[in-house]
Amino acid sequence: MRLATVRVGDGGGTAAAVVDDDGLTVIDGVPDVGSLLTDPSWREVAAGADGEQLALDALAPVVPRPGKVLCVGLNYRNHIKEMGRELPEHPTLFPKYPETLIGPYDPIRWSAHSAALDWEAELAVVVGARVFEASAAEAEAAIAGYAVLNDVTLRDYQYHTTQWLPGKNFAGTTPLGPWLTTADAFTDGRITTTVNGSLVQDSSTADLVFSPAELIGYVSRFLPLAPGDVIATGTPGGVGHARKPPVYLRPGDVVETAIEGLGSLRNVVGG
Amino acid sequence: MRLATVRVGDGGGTAAAVVDDDGLTVIDGVPDVGSLLTDPSWREVAAGADGEQLALDALAPVVPRPGKVLCVGLNYRNHIKEMGRELPEHPTLFPKYPETLIGPYDPIRWSAHSAALDWEAELAVVVGARVFEASAAEAEAAIAGYAVLNDVTLRDYQYHTTQWLPGKNFAGTTPLGPWLTTADAFTDGRITTTVNGSLVQDSSTADLVFSPAELIGYVSRFLPLAPGDVIATGTPGGVGHARKPPVYLRPGDVVETAIEGLGSLRNVVGG
Repeated sequence: MRLATVRVGDGGGTAAAVVDDDGLTVIDGVPDVGSLLTDPSWREVAAGADGEQLALDALAPVVPRPGKVLCVGLNYRNHIKEMGRELPEHPTLFPKYPETLIGPYDPIRWSAHSAALDWEAELAVVVGARVFEASAAEAEAAIAGYAVLNDVTLRDYQYHTTQWLPGKNFAGTTPLGPWLTTADAFTDGRITTTVNGSLVQDSSTADLVFSPAELIGYVSRFLPLAPGDVIATGTPGGVGHARKPPVYLRPGDVVETAIEGLGSLRNVVGG
Repeated sequence: MRLATVRVGDGGGTAAAVVDDDGLTVIDGVPDVGSLLTDPSWREVAAGADGEQLALDALAPVVPRPGKVLCVGLNYRNHIKEMGRELPEHPTLFPKYPETLIGPYDPIRWSAHSAALDWEAELAVVVGARVFEASAAEAEAAIAGYAVLNDVTLRDYQYHTTQWLPGKNFAGTTPLGPWLTTADAFTDGRITTTVNGSLVQDSSTADLVFSPAELIGYVSRFLPLAPGDVIATGTPGGVGHARKPPVYLRPGDVVETAIEGLGSLRNVVGG
């Protein structure tokens, strides 16, 4: 099953919807997928969707206001090895705030404060249950599903200090979607980024060092996770900043991030 | 003026209140100080408080569910210089999630996952207006007031990787309060920590490298700040981890963090 959050009306409203081959079927009375997941019977509620039929456009971030978006660095095995580093013992975690999120086809906000705009295709895990100090089985069961997230990063602000928060938290930069594919319908897939049609990242989510369930288990040792929380699981090699010379996105560039089986995000850099 | 969030009834409810010499006067219909600050006329609303009179106990975190708690590292001049480092050009920022917050007199949660529990007395700035890409004057005007925050840290988890998030985000560890003192009623003051009555941190908030308004200005270059958001401005020297040998808190220890003019937090480490 695939679930989306669609913009409806002119007042900034949204609705949760089920994605099928013909488009979207609205789940009446549920404003977004994050809200849907707070209902323990969300699978049955979604399966019973019988609201308005809409085209597959005007999509919002699949979870518009997650309580937490935790991102992971250094989590693709081949990329770590090619950099000559040891595989890490613990995941590297940093935050994104909800104000960074945009829909899967929205423009990426261009800021006057930085021109070092880079891409990072990532598998996003969406939490579907409250977990704290979770066992491995509880962590696995807490995964509602998966989506694509482009962890757009302003490299100069990322490296202002040792802590990456500023470069990861420019408002309006981070597409999340296009929809949530439930955990039963996805295992692993090819993960790619193209910039203006050129392939710049190409790997497989099977290459993750820490699996989604392991990440949930680690975080839940100290912090409760709740329905709608998102963990972005890290990016493979091929980012612009690591190229010689570095390559950054400019206004008008088109960046597409995709995971086989989960769909793709297509975003134009704003001017 | 001083504002607090007080626990009322048995159902986990809270109320915003004005603190005076005799105790608290509830602001009817306002569940907490974070909610109060979303009303642009919050000063007038608070000045008109005429609800129930309560004793000054049962205090909740002064903002129980901030949208963001941004913390600053390495922000006390004397401490940086005594470590032989250069003064930083940019503030070091990391997050705390609201699940970490506790009231000013609540026990600090003891976790089976870490015994490296350390104190960090900090001046907390509470935001009272929405700001984005703020000028210096707008940043200054966006400060609702100040409180004390003990940025309790699990040092082993802080240094699992380069990113400090895990060690800063153990649920139920971080007192915030005891109340908000409005910006007009505070300039600077002595900041101290005692552990079981022994003085372990002793400095002045006048020693900050980045002032509260400078921190708001920096963050707002990339991320909007909203009423109720909190910035914890960093800790002076004297933390347990830097001692030789290191000193950590144990169950039953009593840690008091205070700022002259803002009050004090008193927390027992839970067992």
